[in-house]
Amino acid sequence: MRKKNIVLTGFGAVGREFIHLLREKSEIIKENYNLELRLVAVGGRDGFICSDEGLNIDILSEAEPGSKSLADYAHDFRMSLTNSYGKADVLVEATPTDVESGEPGFTNIITAFSNRMDVVTISKGALVARYDTVFEVAKANKVRLKYSGATAAALPTKDIGEISLAGSEIVGIEGILNGTTNYILTRMHEEGLSFEEALRTAQQKGIAETNSDLDVKGIDSACKILLLSNDLLGTRYSLKDLSIQGIDRLTKEQMAESKRRGTKFKLLAKAYKQDGKVHINIAPAEIGPGHMLAAVDGTNKGIVFHTDTMGAVCAFGGSSSPRGAAAAALKDLINLYRDN
Amino acid sequence: MRKKNIVLTGFGAVGREFIHLLREKSEIIKENYNLELRLVAVGGRDGFICSDEGLNIDILSEAEPGSKSLADYAHDFRMSLTNSYGKADVLVEATPTDVESGEPGFTNIITAFSNRMDVVTISKGALVARYDTVFEVAKANKVRLKYSGATAAALPTKDIGEISLAGSEIVGIEGILNGTTNYILTRMHEEGLSFEEALRTAQQKGIAETNSDLDVKGIDSACKILLLSNDLLGTRYSLKDLSIQGIDRLTKEQMAESKRRGTKFKLLAKAYKQDGKVHINIAPAEIGPGHMLAAVDGTNKGIVFHTDTMGAVCAFGGSSSPRGAAAAALKDLINLYRDN
Repeated sequence: MRKKNIVLTGFGAVGREFIHLLREKSEIIKENYNLELRLVAVGGRDGFICSDEGLNIDILSEAEPGSKSLADYAHDFRMSLTNSYGKADVLVEATPTDVESGEPGFTNIITAFSNRMDVVTISKGALVARYDTVFEVAKANKVRLKYSGATAAALPTKDIGEISLAGSEIVGIEGILNGTTNYILTRMHEEGLSFEEALRTAQQKGIAETNSDLDVKGIDSACKILLLSNDLLGTRYSLKDLSIQGIDRLTKEQMAESKRRGTKFKLLAKAYKQDGKVHINIAPAEIGPGHMLAAVDGTNKGIVFHTDTMGAVCAFGGSSSPRGAAAAALKDLINLYRDN
Repeated sequence: MRKKNIVLTGFGAVGREFIHLLREKSEIIKENYNLELRLVAVGGRDGFICSDEGLNIDILSEAEPGSKSLADYAHDFRMSLTNSYGKADVLVEATPTDVESGEPGFTNIITAFSNRMDVVTISKGALVARYDTVFEVAKANKVRLKYSGATAAALPTKDIGEISLAGSEIVGIEGILNGTTNYILTRMHEEGLSFEEALRTAQQKGIAETNSDLDVKGIDSACKILLLSNDLLGTRYSLKDLSIQGIDRLTKEQMAESKRRGTKFKLLAKAYKQDGKVHINIAPAEIGPGHMLAAVDGTNKGIVFHTDTMGAVCAFGGSSSPRGAAAAALKDLINLYRDN
């Protein structure tokens, strides 16, 4: 039995759900993958709770998300919040993303690499802001990095590009990579709501955040296609190299006209090779019923890979939820350490 | 640079296309995966052509499919067709499938295992007829087996189940796994053709074979869902454990009624857990526009995985062609030996 000690940074909804999954799945993971996963530290805004023997995941998986729960846990178990954690094998990074600075994810990831730990990141900030540095430091320390959680989570994207299309040339990628904007567009299309009305509905349902700029201005989609392009199309771009347009200027009239024409507006993130260069743009685009992503509605996400030998391969679905994101991190962990 | 010597059994359309891909892709595979692939033997009905230094893939990739081309090659290069091949690392098995006996694939695969070779199989006969034996012999010889080509080829199915859904419980799988029947059903649905008329069209276009029984009676779909279930749902079933119904009894009237109702008939292969048991059935089923496979028309194939943590994940597309099947084998080869 392989044993791996895990540090988690970020105890928000996704981090808490990750612990929940550890509890739910640890027995079956031992059985199927000969792998024992133990949570030895969780870090929040005010510091880490740590235990070499393993933290109590029954309690943590039922606690409210947020750093306060970590302070409560420390109090109940008579420990202090610390600035660092002890020896561990792998970091799961799930702090809120800042795509400008990459922090606090960047520091968390680099610290882990320096400690010779592998990293599974759900947050994308560090990779978006400092892609090259992150990979250089990983290489220098001979450790590995997985980031399915940062590239559409429960929707398989990187896996398909790397594994299922190995040996094929990917000539272009098109994706509906953000569930929130897709939900808003679906409501606008189906019910004739204005952007503001549909956004408010999404916020009321907890699908959009109060500050929804990252989603509706296309930044989140841009981050995901950027990481996929850097990984699969060999680019070394950053956000500034991309043409990014959100959905916040789409009018009821445009939506109604498109509906009359039998098309739908989708926020498409595209990366494609042309004239020896990879172009990336994110913009609302009208797609007809024959488009492979035409049925990707609501909070669903989808991706199409255009290849030279396998034709077009499309994947869609995968829960857009904290549980789905946490499951993507768990998948990465298993794929790092499985022996079969 | 890792070097791997390949033996190919079966020089039909897929085998020839595999050689074509080796020629087209060998440089990029060296570059991207640090892997040099060399074809050292090709076997057909009358024996093998072999060369320790590597066969001439420029010539073979342009030759007509069929054993006669191997005899011509032997003649031109002044060699004899042999009964066996020399030392090699991996067998690519692409002979025509016999799902009853599993031959000649079974013998080819077992021989390779006994020679301590890994195997990538495109033909499914051996696995369908003698699943347990094949895996036991592989294990005993400490070699590996990949078979994407036998489970819908360019459509990612096994990869998604094993890699992208690692740690998720797959509670059910639904697939449109046979391009030929899907093409026939699409023509019947869209143009009101009878089964016989649509079959004839498919045969004229080279989409259906003259003897189309394996496809239209649902056997090919059954083989694929069987292999996926044995791999991903832990069953050890064989064809006799499955309920299999083809599309050959669907009438024009049934199709017309379904069209009026706004549904489509698809040949669905389903494997699902119920009452602690996995049930598998293959039968024509009406699906509505909200079904994830509703847009999978023509020769396209598709698959949906229902999971406990990631929701439903659907993949569709992937060229249903000799090139697509050959590309699936090449993918398996790369994934066996890649170092990244």
